[in-house]
Amino acid sequence: MSGVPDQNIHPVATGLAAKTVEKHQGQQPLVFYAGWFCPFVQRTWITLEEKGIPYQYVEVNPYKKEKHFLEINPKGLVPAIEYKGKALYESLVLSELLEEEFPNHTPNVLPKDPVERAYARIWIDYVAKSILPWNMRLIQAQEADKQKDALDELNKALRTFAEKIKGPYFLGEQFSLVDIAIVPWVVRDYIITENRGFSREGVSPKWKQYADLVEKRDSVLNTQSDKEYYAEIYGRYLRDEAQSELAKAIRAGKPIP
Amino acid sequence: MSGVPDQNIHPVATGLAAKTVEKHQGQQPLVFYAGWFCPFVQRTWITLEEKGIPYQYVEVNPYKKEKHFLEINPKGLVPAIEYKGKALYESLVLSELLEEEFPNHTPNVLPKDPVERAYARIWIDYVAKSILPWNMRLIQAQEADKQKDALDELNKALRTFAEKIKGPYFLGEQFSLVDIAIVPWVVRDYIITENRGFSREGVSPKWKQYADLVEKRDSVLNTQSDKEYYAEIYGRYLRDEAQSELAKAIRAGKPIP
Ligand SMILES: N[C@@H](CCC(=O)N[C@@H](CS)C(=O)NCC(=O)O)C(=O)O
Ligand SMILES: N[C@@H](CCC(=O)N[C@@H](CS)C(=O)NCC(=O)O)C(=O)O
Repeated sequence: MSGVPDQNIHPVATGLAAKTVEKHQGQQPLVFYAGWFCPFVQRTWITLEEKGIPYQYVEVNPYKKEKHFLEINPKGLVPAIEYKGKALYESLVLSELLEEEFPNHTPNVLPKDPVERAYARIWIDYVAKSILPWNMRLIQAQEADKQKDALDELNKALRTFAEKIKGPYFLGEQFSLVDIAIVPWVVRDYIITENRGFSREGVSPKWKQYADLVEKRDSVLNTQSDKEYYAEIYGRYLRDEAQSELAKAIRAGKPIP
Repeated sequence: MSGVPDQNIHPVATGLAAKTVEKHQGQQPLVFYAGWFCPFVQRTWITLEEKGIPYQYVEVNPYKKEKHFLEINPKGLVPAIEYKGKALYESLVLSELLEEEFPNHTPNVLPKDPVERAYARIWIDYVAKSILPWNMRLIQAQEADKQKDALDELNKALRTFAEKIKGPYFLGEQFSLVDIAIVPWVVRDYIITENRGFSREGVSPKWKQYADLVEKRDSVLNTQSDKEYYAEIYGRYLRDEAQSELAKAIRAGKPIP
């Protein structure tokens, strides 16, 4: 193995995710370029699984920036999709695409009413802009004061989100893109629990109840690999040694990809 | 006048924008909370004007954080919309809402085909994440090396965008949300031209041609105030004295609102 450390990740999914990958090896009009470890990938993957859309799973190590993959996503990031001759990327854009292109594959992951849909998008945007950057900063922060600052901000942002949960899911009975936008970080929160003093109860009882519920959804479980394989990857983030585009941007306080 | 400097902005639109405001004083089911000076507001305003949607224009000074306005948008930011008993915000969410709620008000600002729409969203996202933060950093940067760094990054990002312009507009003949996402910063680029060494030609000939075209669109002209009134506001940004949420976030290298 050679190159930057991020290139040496375990090559394939394990656990329940491996079983899901196995079922999606055959050619299909929709090709899903994925990395088993990636929370952004998991958003799109959950959407595919929820809606039962036929897809071919192709494992990519995005840190290798292989030529064929860069032709699909010039940003060199997973997830990406090839479909109807087009190459598309950005996890949330892909999830919306899947809903709009396959409206009859239920469950629907966005409300049909435009006003309700706008409300959902406000909170998807909130996850992306106000929650995730603090999560990343918390993981990468090395000094105690920076860790405390990031933990406070993350707790505050999660609390704001939690107050709006209708229950059981964010929008009510319907499991939606709002839940999908955040759940990959819910299933990974043991990393900040074990290393950065985070706790679900520490956010709020309502958050804990929600987190405990969404992580058990079938589509979430079926896109998770075994816990031990994540440890190596997150170790690099926790020591702030990761060389991903995201890690470098967070470190430099620059716009995130 | 009192309070932080950002509260002392000119209270109303001027020039062509004032004429547009005047035509939209009557009560309507859709109330548009706007600030005449705000580029994010202008996105939603252009969408309303393009599609000829009836709306009531209400001028808000978001820096005052007045109680009634915070009830509409807890983030305290313009633009916001009140419609069918809901309060909604975030410029790009609002523009998508207007397209989805008023699909028969032509022109349509998003393609009907979900794959084409996903492609448009990738580039809208690119504007938000890879272009605008560099624009803000360039304006607020005080040291020569930071200004150079931001100018290089901004030029690079605009060039990447420009390469994808089908012409005359980003997606081709259809003036779309991709154009709307970026045009408020095109009409304001004289600020970085006069103060930070930016030039349209310096990006690329294709960018210059595009920028020269989109700034002349009626909906853009009709939502612009007289140039002199922007000077005072941008002066604070250029001296890095602005106290807006955005300015503070950029200054601190924190997630932007
Ligand atoms: N904004 C993107 C982020 C995707 C992303 O950062 N993916 C990571 C893996 S989790 C990646 O491909 N990294 C490759 C690199 O940083 O070089 C999305 O939502 O899809
Ligand atoms: N992401 C928001 C940004 C809106 C925004 O930053 N608006 C500014 C005016 S241009 C504002 O209301 N600022 C008030 C403040 O910062 O306190 C959007 O796209 O609508």
